[in-house]
Amino acid sequence: MIASIELKKSASKHLYLQLYSQLRELILKGELEADTKLPPIRKFSKKLSVNNITIVNAYNLLEEEDLVYKKVGSGTFVAPLTNQHKEEQNNYLDEQVYIDEDTKFTEQQEKMINFATGAPTPDLFPIAPFKRLVNKVLDRDGGYAFGYQKSQGYLELRKTISSYITNYNIKADIDEIQIISGAQQGIDILAKTFLDYGDTVFVERPTYPGAISVFNSRKANIVEIPITSEGIDTAVLEEKLAEYNPEFLYLMPNFQNPTGYSYSKTTKERIIELANEYSLLIIEDDCLGDLNYTSKDNKSLKSLDQNQRIIYIKSFSKVFMPGLRLAFLLIPNRYFEDILISKYISDIFTDGLVQRVLDLYFKEEMWEEQITTLKDTYSQRYQTMCNALQEYLPQKVEFTIPQGGLNFWLELPAELTDKKLQQQALKKDINLAPGSVFYAAAPPDNRIRLSIAAASQKEIRRGIKKLASIIKDQLENNGYQLNNSFLPLV
Amino acid sequence: MIASIELKKSASKHLYLQLYSQLRELILKGELEADTKLPPIRKFSKKLSVNNITIVNAYNLLEEEDLVYKKVGSGTFVAPLTNQHKEEQNNYLDEQVYIDEDTKFTEQQEKMINFATGAPTPDLFPIAPFKRLVNKVLDRDGGYAFGYQKSQGYLELRKTISSYITNYNIKADIDEIQIISGAQQGIDILAKTFLDYGDTVFVERPTYPGAISVFNSRKANIVEIPITSEGIDTAVLEEKLAEYNPEFLYLMPNFQNPTGYSYSKTTKERIIELANEYSLLIIEDDCLGDLNYTSKDNKSLKSLDQNQRIIYIKSFSKVFMPGLRLAFLLIPNRYFEDILISKYISDIFTDGLVQRVLDLYFKEEMWEEQITTLKDTYSQRYQTMCNALQEYLPQKVEFTIPQGGLNFWLELPAELTDKKLQQQALKKDINLAPGSVFYAAAPPDNRIRLSIAAASQKEIRRGIKKLASIIKDQLENNGYQLNNSFLPLV
Repeated sequence: MIASIELKKSASKHLYLQLYSQLRELILKGELEADTKLPPIRKFSKKLSVNNITIVNAYNLLEEEDLVYKKVGSGTFVAPLTNQHKEEQNNYLDEQVYIDEDTKFTEQQEKMINFATGAPTPDLFPIAPFKRLVNKVLDRDGGYAFGYQKSQGYLELRKTISSYITNYNIKADIDEIQIISGAQQGIDILAKTFLDYGDTVFVERPTYPGAISVFNSRKANIVEIPITSEGIDTAVLEEKLAEYNPEFLYLMPNFQNPTGYSYSKTTKERIIELANEYSLLIIEDDCLGDLNYTSKDNKSLKSLDQNQRIIYIKSFSKVFMPGLRLAFLLIPNRYFEDILISKYISDIFTDGLVQRVLDLYFKEEMWEEQITTLKDTYSQRYQTMCNALQEYLPQKVEFTIPQGGLNFWLELPAELTDKKLQQQALKKDINLAPGSVFYAAAPPDNRIRLSIAAASQKEIRRGIKKLASIIKDQLENNGYQLNNSFLPLV
Repeated sequence: MIASIELKKSASKHLYLQLYSQLRELILKGELEADTKLPPIRKFSKKLSVNNITIVNAYNLLEEEDLVYKKVGSGTFVAPLTNQHKEEQNNYLDEQVYIDEDTKFTEQQEKMINFATGAPTPDLFPIAPFKRLVNKVLDRDGGYAFGYQKSQGYLELRKTISSYITNYNIKADIDEIQIISGAQQGIDILAKTFLDYGDTVFVERPTYPGAISVFNSRKANIVEIPITSEGIDTAVLEEKLAEYNPEFLYLMPNFQNPTGYSYSKTTKERIIELANEYSLLIIEDDCLGDLNYTSKDNKSLKSLDQNQRIIYIKSFSKVFMPGLRLAFLLIPNRYFEDILISKYISDIFTDGLVQRVLDLYFKEEMWEEQITTLKDTYSQRYQTMCNALQEYLPQKVEFTIPQGGLNFWLELPAELTDKKLQQQALKKDINLAPGSVFYAAAPPDNRIRLSIAAASQKEIRRGIKKLASIIKDQLENNGYQLNNSFLPLV
């Protein structure tokens, strides 16, 4: 029976969850009888070519459900099935989750194909491990998990992050790491630290609207520098550096939001040069860097920085769970204290329980697995989106295929507008992000952003097909006859 | 056996936890044998004069530990003891919690008597119910507990709050409630909404330093209005209102931080009058209003407000768990949208899991119990502090006994300074808050704040005795002979 178990490393489900499900099924079906000894951890992990921890986690989950029991020194055994378990078996596949009013809202929206949001859907979150770890933390730390925490963040988590980011070729000491309540808070506290009334800040054009709002709230002077598919325009950047003295430049070098563009190696190196030449502080928001679907290098600017010119923001939201507000900053030493004060006045500290759970999540090596799982899911959606856009969209709609991330940035024919298209699409149960929200001033009105975060492959195909036909209709209503062989040559 | 059970309503432990512990002990000791039927819920609750929910919660906890089992339609029965349970019994009372490095730090500090912090110690947090509820939420909502939440907050929690605050004679619709990540964030987002460069804000003098920092960060002009033991000086307030046009007045009418002072009825009414007369917006931070140890009325300003002039901040930190960043704002309708935007740019939304847990906490009526528990503990500490101060302190140290809250505000003889006293006290393992941090400008240097949040009754007596002798030493070293019968009459 055990021999039938097979784990797919490429599958969109954690290895230990795969193992857990398969063992669970064998037990519930009665194919593994009560008191059967399960394979020892080391032996089993070798056989399946996985880490010991995969087996341990799977056995633990089964134990929590009383499907197995452990005897100290002799191993793990199948438990006798209770009546409840037998009943459960029948309901296993169609279990109904209690839906409260907020989630009902989401449910109602389910017929809506949502290309507007950059937030992943709940089915992609690692609920089972989270539940296990939160209980582990509560049993271990008791009240300490709920006490006041240091504003800088939980020491163990900072250690874990310090060691983890070496994978990204970044070195940062625990004293350069600041835990924050999500990337948005990171932008907010950096603005608090560096921007006063009338100060200048450089951003990419277009950029993340949450950053624009924060800089506006500080009454800063926002200077937008165009971004191309090679990254921010370094010639314009240099011009503007000669003209202004910005407090910092805020950018997203990989799979930028909203464009999906990634900076070329040349652009990255040139920015570092300019930063050194002009003593420019750079805030690098690495929102989606983990979602690289190509073999192309996507180093962070931070990993190229020799002169402590970069503050690096990384969120756990997209890849872990957006509901848990958690991110970190890597901060050159000379700025640390000022930023710590800004963190303090923002919310004093970040939830200690969640910090502890995330720390264990890393320590049990589940983070890597979750990234792999998500990359897997998203790269399939990405491929589907690429194909659908190329297959269905009229040629007059322009876009660059991104190398990773979640966003596709479309330029509509000049006679269409983002808002009008959004309105029409909403009527057909499709939502999208109008491009104009991504600009600080004088936005063009014919860009849209499509995100694959919350749409399945099926929805992507269906949605793009519909969207394409809405675009064609609008073009025709504009008196523009769409016929590829007779396109006017202007 | 069951007859031996007795619940103490005044004890510093939840009723259902008392019941749970006592039943657990009877079961583990074998005094309640396997398959004994436990009393039906209604009958038992009547006998013990408690709510049904107390019995339900206790039975649920026992069931989670497999100490009892339920038969649908027939009731709850004692389960047969496993070997694990028998082992557990021996370890029950001296279980060792794993201590990580951050908590070790706390441990090391345990010989330190901490009068400096306003944060309660971990032993006062309701860990067991939190654990039960977090699991309940995860089982019920799955991934929805981790998805993006509405910036305004979880609908069910807003409903719960809307109904709960009627206990405080406050009416607020769910559309006037904004969930935030702690009271500090509340102050921050209100400052973002209302304060620009050079705007004027009124505060009490002295006031909470976290508020001063936020207002300074907005480059506001802070005008301090003296507070007396009757509340803010309304004559000075009126003068200043004639002179300035403040964006708002920030105050804490009950058990103020740091003074512990409470506004008299007259002061409260006069403030409402002035607010109406001058169209003044008031931000009322009700940080400690629940901790009233006297029979004196401590109505909030919000409950007296007929004209939508007050934004009310209430935190769950002090009474629930400070580690969970959670509070709410009650906002007059006309300000709601602007504040929502400020919330959005601060951290988009507040942790959805914690919002859900708190909602259940209220729904299962545990909140009231927790408040009672804490009031009980703190009022004992408060009494001890009052006695110790009166017994040990030299007469030259002045203070007003507060009616509630956590803070005592002392005025030292002019020849002593807060910083120097703090230094000397630290050498003797006592920490206190120097008064000068509670002023926006020109602080006096002879005030200190002592908090009972993190000191036991024993520590309070021992700490105040020591502190008194340090003060006496310092006075003598200053050439000042402390002899009550020969006090100079100047």
